[in-house]
Amino acid sequence: MTAYDDLMAHQRETQALAQVAGRLGWDQETMMPRGAAPQRGEEMAAMESVLHARRTDPRIESWLAQIAPQALDDQGRANLRHIRRSFERASKVPAALAARIARVTSEAQGIWAEARASDDFKAFAPTLTEVLSLKREEGQALAMGGNVYDAMLDDYEPGATGAELEAMFGALRPKLSALRAAVRDAKAPPRLSGRFDENAQMKLTRRLAKTFGYDMTHGRVDKAVHPFSSGSGLDVRITTRTNDLDPFNCFYSTIHEVGHAAYEQGIHRDYLLTPLGQGVSMGVHESQSRIYENQLGRSRAFTEWLFGQMKDAFGDFGVPDAETFYRVVNRVSDGFIRTEADELQYNLHVLLRFDLERALVSHDLQVSDLEAAWNDRFEADFGYKVDKASNGVLQDVHWSVGLFGYFPTYSLGNVYAGCLHEALRRDVSALDSQLAAGDTTAATDWLRANVQTHGGLYEPKEVIERASGQAPNEAPLLTYLTDKFSDLYDLSA
Amino acid sequence: MTAYDDLMAHQRETQALAQVAGRLGWDQETMMPRGAAPQRGEEMAAMESVLHARRTDPRIESWLAQIAPQALDDQGRANLRHIRRSFERASKVPAALAARIARVTSEAQGIWAEARASDDFKAFAPTLTEVLSLKREEGQALAMGGNVYDAMLDDYEPGATGAELEAMFGALRPKLSALRAAVRDAKAPPRLSGRFDENAQMKLTRRLAKTFGYDMTHGRVDKAVHPFSSGSGLDVRITTRTNDLDPFNCFYSTIHEVGHAAYEQGIHRDYLLTPLGQGVSMGVHESQSRIYENQLGRSRAFTEWLFGQMKDAFGDFGVPDAETFYRVVNRVSDGFIRTEADELQYNLHVLLRFDLERALVSHDLQVSDLEAAWNDRFEADFGYKVDKASNGVLQDVHWSVGLFGYFPTYSLGNVYAGCLHEALRRDVSALDSQLAAGDTTAATDWLRANVQTHGGLYEPKEVIERASGQAPNEAPLLTYLTDKFSDLYDLSA
Repeated sequence: MTAYDDLMAHQRETQALAQVAGRLGWDQETMMPRGAAPQRGEEMAAMESVLHARRTDPRIESWLAQIAPQALDDQGRANLRHIRRSFERASKVPAALAARIARVTSEAQGIWAEARASDDFKAFAPTLTEVLSLKREEGQALAMGGNVYDAMLDDYEPGATGAELEAMFGALRPKLSALRAAVRDAKAPPRLSGRFDENAQMKLTRRLAKTFGYDMTHGRVDKAVHPFSSGSGLDVRITTRTNDLDPFNCFYSTIHEVGHAAYEQGIHRDYLLTPLGQGVSMGVHESQSRIYENQLGRSRAFTEWLFGQMKDAFGDFGVPDAETFYRVVNRVSDGFIRTEADELQYNLHVLLRFDLERALVSHDLQVSDLEAAWNDRFEADFGYKVDKASNGVLQDVHWSVGLFGYFPTYSLGNVYAGCLHEALRRDVSALDSQLAAGDTTAATDWLRANVQTHGGLYEPKEVIERASGQAPNEAPLLTYLTDKFSDLYDLSA
Repeated sequence: MTAYDDLMAHQRETQALAQVAGRLGWDQETMMPRGAAPQRGEEMAAMESVLHARRTDPRIESWLAQIAPQALDDQGRANLRHIRRSFERASKVPAALAARIARVTSEAQGIWAEARASDDFKAFAPTLTEVLSLKREEGQALAMGGNVYDAMLDDYEPGATGAELEAMFGALRPKLSALRAAVRDAKAPPRLSGRFDENAQMKLTRRLAKTFGYDMTHGRVDKAVHPFSSGSGLDVRITTRTNDLDPFNCFYSTIHEVGHAAYEQGIHRDYLLTPLGQGVSMGVHESQSRIYENQLGRSRAFTEWLFGQMKDAFGDFGVPDAETFYRVVNRVSDGFIRTEADELQYNLHVLLRFDLERALVSHDLQVSDLEAAWNDRFEADFGYKVDKASNGVLQDVHWSVGLFGYFPTYSLGNVYAGCLHEALRRDVSALDSQLAAGDTTAATDWLRANVQTHGGLYEPKEVIERASGQAPNEAPLLTYLTDKFSDLYDLSA
């Protein structure tokens, strides 16, 4: 056994344990008996403590010191890169601080949920102040004198910086706002109405999952309050939800999660339980979920097929034809909630959070002023006032659990999806005729071969650049959205 | 923090991790996607390796050395007893041997399953020889010069010895055989016939689970190939199965597993995630499952209520009245399979295995002669010949996975159940009138207060003695079975 073999064997066991810990999370949201929560908390904490000990095992440093990277192949060097990053990250943060963050964020989530239920930001502010302060302290430990926000971002999007995202998003925002204003001035398509049997929704949603290539022999679909994808390798499970008034919520949540799951399922089997064996970043992950959901799932071609499926499942549901259905699916509506936003407005929600959280981290904004800042910015961007905190600053769980630096990866994922979609259209000329027949294989095969199979082999930007032929930039997404919504809303007229 | 506090904190985390590992097993049998098996194997192995390292942590020895047991209360001393036993057990077995046993038994299970499918004991014999030899080696390491079979038994029934079980079972066997012979000479009640909707079975089985006090806020019922109970503390899940020809299989499997689960759920909450927080032995565990299933669930009083439930669930199912139903439920039938055996014959199946496995361990019987020895003994005990290996020596998984010393705990559990049932009848005079109304609370409350709540506080024999007022012995079971089947089969006539 060489030092590299020892390191990889250790790593493999760590990855297996991380899968176990992740599955506990899945179980908690899908299967766990209600009364098991206190015990589950201890189980999760015990797993985290095992994983932390393994990730900071001093043998890792000594193995790393013994390995000559030039003797390794590309995969080997990429493995080292991930292991070194994880070891250094875990080692830079004092154990006491890590434990305190774990404890405080765990309690903060409950306090946030109560504050949201009573629309009372002030009840949450002291907790958020503490979480922010602890995460800032952690960021400072990680940044070692560098930019604290960049250090936070690095947890979710290795290699990205606040400055480059600011430039990218700065170019995106005014154009999205202008497009949105034009759409709001135009005549809106009808809304979906009526009730849709939830069992029939689940049946069709499973069909959609398979249609988008979800591998049921290595996964399963269950219901949960919030849709998510969980796990890597040979066991990647997704959840969805149903609401009898809104079948699109079920279907597009499923397609979105299938995008995440397909990424994990599509990684080269040789990378199983190695550092290359999971999606490389939140942004690249979101590029897969969003391109499945939007550029493919909400395309005119695919909605034509989905229209037929919905008629089969629900009979006549009040939408006369496929073209109207396409417009109904892509209707741009006013709203407060990020997760319910349409493709056009979604990124405006994210950019608001990105700007506010950077200001919080850099002390330019105090938590006590956050609600007012949110409401002002929202009104400036959307043209109407936030009516209550649960529709505004309290709507997302992220900050309560310390996820500063996470929000921008949502928009970055959309930017990546724009680049990938442009290249996919270039490479696969028959895409629309396939999608209109409910066949996604050309698209999903392309994404698998160009993005998913690589897992953690390349850095996030490199993945997108290799697949799309260009450095990640916002132009393809803007062109796509402008073309799509100009057509949908007859804006050229 | 005293040494005791440190030890208990370490132990608590270990217990939490053991719960996680156990739930992986539950998931594998109920939820896991088929294709996930290879990854799951690595996940389980990684958890086992973490648990083994924790159980042999040298700090345990040093903490134990610093603690004065006389300064502790009863619970504290019982905790120490369990921790010391676990540490010594884990430390006596060389790590290389433990790893080899884990690997060989993991493969052996598959080889056994194939051999069983083709009724070919010879295909399994070499593997069984290896498993036996490794387990004997482990037993020798544990026995340290003492009796090897007793050391094996100690893993499942601490404090029991082969000699005392031999005496107990030696007294049981001729009387069971005589009773069985008399029953076989008598007129048999009818068999159940017809088909029983499997959804209706599941609905009634959930009702039965609740009727026997299963706490659904800390558990759940799913289907699996083999019924089992899994977990301790606040998350104790059971499984059952359905077969449209045999609803009793579903119902009595459920009641049996509820007995196991009620034990875990009934342990004093103060013992959560401590060494006292799970059932103290396999025998005591089986006493709970069997008394729920048989002495309560197959009683004339309870089957009277169940008869009404079955009529509600399935309409007229061909059994005219409650008394006939009681006889149908308790019908004694010929058969080869232990797990399908009725209350009267079950222990004969177990005693056969107990004698054969002791002979294997002591070298008095060679694996090459095992099939013939099984078949001879079976014919002597049951009066007809084994027709194929899957109905004989290959029917149980236990030996393939190295569970030597486990079988006798099944019969010991029945013996314990006999003692407990005698005391329960003495203490709860209105038992039958309650059971006939579908109310088990007096019985289950008594079992909870006298057995379940104690968890690991007392040694197994002590639990039974405290609850029943007598040292465990076979007489109450024999009296119960003789009375029950003499009445059922009119043997006095």
